Amino acid sequence: MRILIIHSDYLNYNVKNKTPVAEEIEEAKKQGAFDESLVVFTAVEKEDEKNPSAIVKNLIKEIKKVNDQVKAENIVLYPYAHLSSSLSSPKVAVQILKDAEEIIKSEGLDVYRVPFGWYKAFEISCKGHPLSELSRTITADEEDEEEGEKKPS
Amino acid sequence: MRILIIHSDYLNYNVKNKTPVAEEIEEAKKQGAFDESLVVFTAVEKEDEKNPSAIVKNLIKEIKKVNDQVKAENIVLYPYAHLSSSLSSPKVAVQILKDAEEIIKSEGLDVYRVPFGWYKAFEISCKGHPLSELSRTITADEEDEEEGEKKPS
Ligand SMILES: [Mg+2]
Repeated sequence: MRILIIHSDYLNYNVKNKTPVAEEIEEAKKQGAFDESLVVFTAVEKEDEKNPSAIVKNLIKEIKKVNDQVKAENIVLYPYAHLSSSLSSPKVAVQILKDAEEIIKSEGLDVYRVPFGWYKAFEISCKGHPLSELSRTITADEEDEEEGEKKPS
Repeated sequence: MRILIIHSDYLNYNVKNKTPVAEEIEEAKKQGAFDESLVVFTAVEKEDEKNPSAIVKNLIKEIKKVNDQVKAENIVLYPYAHLSSSLSSPKVAVQILKDAEEIIKSEGLDVYRVPFGWYKAFEISCKGHPLSELSRTITADEEDEEEGEKKPS
């Protein structure tokens, strides 16, 4: 799984057209607005299908590690296919994101999952401090890869 | 070279801290604001060092192909290391981006290059239509790869 984490003043989105892999969503999910958020853009990869639960675990570990430092008010899981050229099936991707959302929520954090498989208009700000943009490869291994730390844009 | 193209209503940026690979910039480049733009996030890769001029050529070809469809008013080249885990040297990256800027400008288009190697705060909108987010791998080959067409976020 490839992720791009952006510590943002705001993220707003509106769903537009469906794609063939769009998940069904309630009316309330058709738009969203989040201030002071850690936005986690995610691309679940083919490789991740082998051990989804380990991916979920390591994703959450990475998110919490970053959020312990930046202390955002919300965590937003945003599906972003463009981060990888080797995507998993939509089914696995949605399940991994749902599981991550549920576990993070159960730990008392404010977390939100943006709909999968829809074209979306969005606006985002990036705060610009050294930890406000991070990219990672999440694997099923016990130790996460630490590639990309503090890489400038 | 990995690129992520976003057709945006606006892009604003402000440079923050320098990184060790920051290019020297004039005062005027420390911030920028662009409406109705094709924002091209770019990560120049190690592989691109073998034939930079072919990369420049194929990058421009791809940008023009997209812009022929969306007809943005500005083209903004935005260095974005997070799109790759195999980056070129900063020197090659900056030269490729400068060359692309110069050639696009010489063809009469409004093009702007965002400073390389600085932490930046930014705000961007994405319009959300099917061509408003595209990712590509640019190679030195005659025929570009066409991976990622109309991939939803
Ligand atoms: Mg407009």
